[in-house]
Amino acid sequence: MMANAMNPSDQPSSSSPLPGGFRYSGTACGLKASGRKDLSLVVADHAVVAAGVYTQNQIVAAPVINCRSKTPSRSIRAVVTNSGNANACTGEQGQHDANKMCELVADVLDCDPSQVLVMSTGVIGVPLAMEEISKGIHAANLELNQTTEDFQHAADAICTTDQSRKTASRQFDVDGKTVHITGMAKGAGMIAPNMATMLALITTDASLSEEEAEACLKTACKESFNRISVDGHTSTNDTVILLASGDSKVAIGKSSLEIFQRALNSLFTELAKLIVADGEGATHVMAIEIIGAVNDDQAFEIAKTVAASPLVKTAITGGDPNWGRIVSAAGYAQAEITPDAATLKICGETIYQNGTPLPFDAATLSQKMKANVEVPIQLRVGLGNGHSNYWSSDLTTDYVRFNSEYTT
Amino acid sequence: MMANAMNPSDQPSSSSPLPGGFRYSGTACGLKASGRKDLSLVVADHAVVAAGVYTQNQIVAAPVINCRSKTPSRSIRAVVTNSGNANACTGEQGQHDANKMCELVADVLDCDPSQVLVMSTGVIGVPLAMEEISKGIHAANLELNQTTEDFQHAADAICTTDQSRKTASRQFDVDGKTVHITGMAKGAGMIAPNMATMLALITTDASLSEEEAEACLKTACKESFNRISVDGHTSTNDTVILLASGDSKVAIGKSSLEIFQRALNSLFTELAKLIVADGEGATHVMAIEIIGAVNDDQAFEIAKTVAASPLVKTAITGGDPNWGRIVSAAGYAQAEITPDAATLKICGETIYQNGTPLPFDAATLSQKMKANVEVPIQLRVGLGNGHSNYWSSDLTTDYVRFNSEYTT
Repeated sequence: MMANAMNPSDQPSSSSPLPGGFRYSGTACGLKASGRKDLSLVVADHAVVAAGVYTQNQIVAAPVINCRSKTPSRSIRAVVTNSGNANACTGEQGQHDANKMCELVADVLDCDPSQVLVMSTGVIGVPLAMEEISKGIHAANLELNQTTEDFQHAADAICTTDQSRKTASRQFDVDGKTVHITGMAKGAGMIAPNMATMLALITTDASLSEEEAEACLKTACKESFNRISVDGHTSTNDTVILLASGDSKVAIGKSSLEIFQRALNSLFTELAKLIVADGEGATHVMAIEIIGAVNDDQAFEIAKTVAASPLVKTAITGGDPNWGRIVSAAGYAQAEITPDAATLKICGETIYQNGTPLPFDAATLSQKMKANVEVPIQLRVGLGNGHSNYWSSDLTTDYVRFNSEYTT
Repeated sequence: MMANAMNPSDQPSSSSPLPGGFRYSGTACGLKASGRKDLSLVVADHAVVAAGVYTQNQIVAAPVINCRSKTPSRSIRAVVTNSGNANACTGEQGQHDANKMCELVADVLDCDPSQVLVMSTGVIGVPLAMEEISKGIHAANLELNQTTEDFQHAADAICTTDQSRKTASRQFDVDGKTVHITGMAKGAGMIAPNMATMLALITTDASLSEEEAEACLKTACKESFNRISVDGHTSTNDTVILLASGDSKVAIGKSSLEIFQRALNSLFTELAKLIVADGEGATHVMAIEIIGAVNDDQAFEIAKTVAASPLVKTAITGGDPNWGRIVSAAGYAQAEITPDAATLKICGETIYQNGTPLPFDAATLSQKMKANVEVPIQLRVGLGNGHSNYWSSDLTTDYVRFNSEYTT
């Protein structure tokens, strides 16, 4: 977490000024039967630096293939995103359609299609309705603006079954100049017969090289979006894009790299936690912290394993301080643990210490677990220095109902 | 599967004669509040060969530590199993109690405690009620017999929340002599605040060396119990024990090793599928077959990943032929796939071919999926020769309810 003294605006703020150099719009073009916004356009006033991080699934959607070939870059002008259709498993037609989306945007902006990035989320295996997309791009172009309201429209238009819009902002000063970072994300929502997709688009007026943008983006993703899970099913479309306009005139060099990275990590973590909290059917967020592992990678592996266990998830759903499920999940992770050093705290209370259960007031602890959305789980797995955070939603009957009661 | 011509008794049969050299009993000693059977005793008439396969969890229960130190062996006389208490996470007292169980059995049989193996399943973190255990061992000893009924009592006494007893038998002839193999298993049931445990005990009158017994047991486990999952949470107590009396006078040498191994694999697979079908809340068994992988290990990795996906599981629950969830789960497995070669059959019908969805009658296929307990899913992931089977239960609201509505 960032120190308040260094960074007074580390808290989410919807009234933060937006980064200089970008305009936003979001419109409804008819891809969603509900009539809700489904086409988002973010345009830079001039060519900007862009970096991307993409799904590690071997089955990748057409827009991911498109973006991968274009980033990192220092000449990006726009990112167009549609929701309601993921343009995944759509073969050559899908590739063609993703390219066409970039061409349509390039036409209205009078730039080259190679300067446009594209993201999609929604139904898979269905060709894009390109006529609607085309109308949407033209409409969105007419509505581009730099107000918070337009930014929010753009953020709304990338959502699918998200219960709420996900945005976050940070700002910090360097030598009297202010750097702004703002991000929008969409989370783990599914529409039958589809899968969850995580998208995020972050804009900043910091000045960064392509290499710096890529490095900072990767680091921030590793600390945030790579440490969350709803159901552990990696989407074909996951995409995170960072655009840096440089309009703040603050070059992120050696002196300000650390503060920029911390602001980015903090913003990403806020968005990541919003995604988990809005996971399908979720009633609680497990905030897992693994300490004492052999190294950070092993701590991460253990955290991920604990987070994915349906037995741990359902225990949290029920407000059950079930140390047996948590400790045994750590025990089958592909990482070394020292059973005799295993010590578990739930909501700050130690209930298992050095491999032995401690007496505790289960009813009181259970009430505390149920009362709070975020349930902190800290597990010491040994005597090493390895550490990892991880956030995961619980598993409820609503999740199962939502994902089993639709049929194709 | 075994050829019928070779092995006419490859089908489960509760009337198969039991292997020579063993007696069985199962009794209720008061560990279960329900009053159901909770102490099982299997005794060999003379010292027999024994092999064991144990949980890979790093947190292991006391009886697992006890058995690991004794197998393989050629001098085992008995296996005692209690249900209702797993004797896990019970520290030194747990070790002492596991040893004591062996001593009590050794006393009544007039043998050495090193000749007795022990298994436990049930509540974790609670010391064993040793007075009840002692009474149970004495009572079970008086009831030892070689009838099918006594075998069934022993099989009942190892169950926890299993809905039904799990047994299977095989027999085959070598040079006019008959070899019998019979097994009992318990499955993935949980009692709050506990975890699932899989136990199995297989007796045979084949004559095997310790090395042969261990090798055959490992091979059979790899093909069966290691290819099933209910919720992917590895227990602290999982144990599979094979006892071989040699009373058939058939030495399993080079000539009969293959037929013995095939009979063992077939019996283990039958027990494994019974466990999956009886998984908590399960309404369907996904019978996953991965073909075309780079090698068998990678096929196994992909099968395991598809089997564990909550999105795939809930699709099966809902009778949804959702190729997107299945193909994308294969795509994030830690194994190489060739997306353009991906071909998926559900219930024998090809709905995705060489990376492209095919038109199919979703309503008819959905009905077929719902009507059968076992749903065959065959996914070709490339052009290699790697192959793996895997069985997994679906994920239902009952699973979530059962595991979240108990609190400590």
